[in-house]
Amino acid sequence: MNTYVVVRQMARTLKNLDAILDKAIQQAEARKYDVNNFCSARLFPDMLPFIAQVRIACDSAKTTAALLSGKEPPKHEDNETTVADLRGRIAKCLAYLETFSAADFEATKADALIRLPNRPGKAMHAEEYLITRQWPNFAFHVTTAYNLLRHGGIEIGKSDYLGPLNIVDV
Amino acid sequence: MNTYVVVRQMARTLKNLDAILDKAIQQAEARKYDVNNFCSARLFPDMLPFIAQVRIACDSAKTTAALLSGKEPPKHEDNETTVADLRGRIAKCLAYLETFSAADFEATKADALIRLPNRPGKAMHAEEYLITRQWPNFAFHVTTAYNLLRHGGIEIGKSDYLGPLNIVDV
Repeated sequence: MNTYVVVRQMARTLKNLDAILDKAIQQAEARKYDVNNFCSARLFPDMLPFIAQVRIACDSAKTTAALLSGKEPPKHEDNETTVADLRGRIAKCLAYLETFSAADFEATKADALIRLPNRPGKAMHAEEYLITRQWPNFAFHVTTAYNLLRHGGIEIGKSDYLGPLNIVDV
Repeated sequence: MNTYVVVRQMARTLKNLDAILDKAIQQAEARKYDVNNFCSARLFPDMLPFIAQVRIACDSAKTTAALLSGKEPPKHEDNETTVADLRGRIAKCLAYLETFSAADFEATKADALIRLPNRPGKAMHAEEYLITRQWPNFAFHVTTAYNLLRHGGIEIGKSDYLGPLNIVDV
């Protein structure tokens, strides 16, 4: 298990999401509509709105880093009302993720029990928590935020989601 | 790097996707419409349709396992036209993933160069290929397939995507 590698990738993906939000802001401006109309967008009426998709992506990354290094995750209030606010939420999360190094995760072994926030008396083994719960959940919310913008006509592609890749010549 | 753990999670996620397709089939039947109408569904006209989202998810998992163990991925023809066919595609992919064990991935070190299919002369380092390209790409296409069904009114939730989790009492 290499938790740090996954946490760094979550940070990378959040940076990509931030760049996607920047594109949405610029494109909405060019088309002369309020980009914040996306905040309440849903793919179906009983789904969580766009704003919650971004918040949960951030919290998912923050909680992964904290719990797998034996720390308490910082509380970030759910008070965003604009896309600009959501970029601020991402920035706060990224600043927190930047405080970690590989050494922070070394003490937590794959079979360590991680107590689940908001589920008293329940836990998952560290590696299973990372691989079967946190990483898929994180990707789910980032992709759903992307899909909501894409569905609303924002011109983005998968390369915006994947971000720059370290491709070499052979 | 533990490629096998990620490959197993891809298999688990594909099983969850298969169960989601089964729910879609049953719900469409109950509402008396053809579930295969989803095959061409898109969230925006220039996106790949549902059928391609499922195919790419499968190929992404298959290619990850093959390339990171020094094997040639099997060719699966893109000839599906129904949701039942897509379940067959998933089954073929799962059967292939089942042939791997942890030992298959041991020889490939994190910095080994992995030649990219369809990009002659280009490669990525193994760990970066897995973490920055293959897993995010896989999760992207599974989530987009999920979102297309959700957008079309299929009653599914994130727990269908995450599947059963090994949660223990503490």
